[in-house]
Amino acid sequence: MKVGGKPYRSIWDENGAVLVIDQTRLPFEFKTIRLRTMSEAAHAIRTMAVRGAPCIGAAAAYGVALALGADPSDQALEAALETLGATRPTAVNLRWALAEMRGAVANLAPPQRAAAAFERARKICDDDVEICRSIGVHGLALFREIGAKKRGPLNILTHCNAGWIACVDWGTALAPIYMAYDAGMPVHVWVDETRPRLQGAALTAWELGSHGVPHHIVTDNAGGHLMQRGEVDLVIVGTDRVTANGDVANKIGTYLKALAARDNGVPFYVALPHTTIDWSLGGGDDIPIEERAEAEVLKVRGRDASGALAEIEIAAPGSPAFNPGFDVTPARLVTGLITERGVTQASREGLLRLYPERG
Amino acid sequence: MKVGGKPYRSIWDENGAVLVIDQTRLPFEFKTIRLRTMSEAAHAIRTMAVRGAPCIGAAAAYGVALALGADPSDQALEAALETLGATRPTAVNLRWALAEMRGAVANLAPPQRAAAAFERARKICDDDVEICRSIGVHGLALFREIGAKKRGPLNILTHCNAGWIACVDWGTALAPIYMAYDAGMPVHVWVDETRPRLQGAALTAWELGSHGVPHHIVTDNAGGHLMQRGEVDLVIVGTDRVTANGDVANKIGTYLKALAARDNGVPFYVALPHTTIDWSLGGGDDIPIEERAEAEVLKVRGRDASGALAEIEIAAPGSPAFNPGFDVTPARLVTGLITERGVTQASREGLLRLYPERG
Repeated sequence: MKVGGKPYRSIWDENGAVLVIDQTRLPFEFKTIRLRTMSEAAHAIRTMAVRGAPCIGAAAAYGVALALGADPSDQALEAALETLGATRPTAVNLRWALAEMRGAVANLAPPQRAAAAFERARKICDDDVEICRSIGVHGLALFREIGAKKRGPLNILTHCNAGWIACVDWGTALAPIYMAYDAGMPVHVWVDETRPRLQGAALTAWELGSHGVPHHIVTDNAGGHLMQRGEVDLVIVGTDRVTANGDVANKIGTYLKALAARDNGVPFYVALPHTTIDWSLGGGDDIPIEERAEAEVLKVRGRDASGALAEIEIAAPGSPAFNPGFDVTPARLVTGLITERGVTQASREGLLRLYPERG
Repeated sequence: MKVGGKPYRSIWDENGAVLVIDQTRLPFEFKTIRLRTMSEAAHAIRTMAVRGAPCIGAAAAYGVALALGADPSDQALEAALETLGATRPTAVNLRWALAEMRGAVANLAPPQRAAAAFERARKICDDDVEICRSIGVHGLALFREIGAKKRGPLNILTHCNAGWIACVDWGTALAPIYMAYDAGMPVHVWVDETRPRLQGAALTAWELGSHGVPHHIVTDNAGGHLMQRGEVDLVIVGTDRVTANGDVANKIGTYLKALAARDNGVPFYVALPHTTIDWSLGGGDDIPIEERAEAEVLKVRGRDASGALAEIEIAAPGSPAFNPGFDVTPARLVTGLITERGVTQASREGLLRLYPERG
């Protein structure tokens, strides 16, 4: 999507190097980093300059290509796969991308490997863009349907960041929003700030502002009130994992918005690529919920009066915090799942209708 | 309640001066301010060194006493009432306290006024303490009932700050928690941080920690997940205004916790003195909701690495924010109202049962 009027992806290659947007400096500075070696790619993932499952997968894939560009030997390939695989131990997408890269260069003589690896990395990016674009197309049709029933702009609430910066382009939950905006449909987005890490206030607001989409940041507390007052026409969020019955794990706080949507008759949609569906889990109770560091709650990061990035304590000194990273929104509160194949009910039947090969 | 093992009120008088706790420095510094003149009292209210409706009322009452100590003339009285009344234009309790003070010195010769005024200010404080104590006693009985049905500590979730620091002592929502703790009942409190102003993380956590009550700070997003996992036995909050039918206006985000409580079968209680009931309003739709400054959302205050109080920007530069201060929890989601007269249903009938004189 656009930054300063110019279209960007979150990762691309150019003259044998890989370029990524440094997400640790957003929203205060927009800087690209040039990755010239596998080590630099691993460092970018490890330091979260690159974040978001699809973006991490793409960066790891390019990391393998960079390694093979420097040394196409079997040993170099194995070392790269190991180093990159260890950068974010729980990222499923990362491991998938590395397996793809191994397959792409298998049975190739060393001199042919680098070119094949770059080609496969590009394909991983393009495929992700196409999946997100398809989610956008299906979501846009829904937006048009809901928008046709009202006057004025379509008011959309979203939680956390499921945007292009976390993917390669478009994003998942934000894809239909960009498409609606680009198509000239009047839209306005309520951006939940998304404590503790503030991905909404920092990243989603930055994405929307950079592309030109009208929006307001709100605290995570405000969404229920906005729905009570008729200020939200639909909620759309991304997800980290959807179980086979349609339960949705997403950033902590998503469940509260789903409850408010239900209480006020507001449709609640979840946008996801098929890779997010965990067919092995029967329901949300089976999803382990990560407990994250209490410092994320007790401290807040931002920019101080001098313009420097800073971290401040916000809580009573000595008070402990508890920091679950995700919650589970039960399928009964989800109006629909939007995938690259279409919109369906959040249920086993609904998912199998779109993915019959899983039946 | 206790700070460093020593019992405190939020306001008291000593040798003709009035002492208050400087709430602008909490939770990072515990400092009392000595108010010697009416102007100093007005300044303390204006700068929010003193906050919380009952505490503001008490400070204003003492301000009148300080004025009459310096000059007991009619002119000085009127000037004090005017100055103090203008400190926080929308505070209902402040206006009530000033009217009480005017009545207390009416028909008294100037030489008798200062003593009578100090006596009335003390009585305003003592009455508030007694009301909060009664709320605590009724709440404690409820806690015992709920606690009897389970093993382990009673897990209580609260939002914002309805504690002793906002009143004179005990608090409203926190009163039964202090009483349970003092009675040796095992309790543990989940403290919603309460964005945007973080009264939970800063004040409620400080209060509980200072008195010794076990607690954890959580983001406002976490409560629903905690309830889903059976980690919350009851929710208790304060309120800014209750309408005649039992609808509850309270800090933004309260409604979301009430929805989660209902969805998980967790009792949801609201603690309030009778002065908070607005008999003139038939329902929550009639309550005007204050829109506060967007800077409260876009910036966060705390303590920086050097130990100084600081404010940092947390949002994408240029992104606007919307900041409603309160929301309305409909009576249907409230398990019960706890007042100084007892516990009752959140309904017109329930309220009239406790306050038949209003029927």
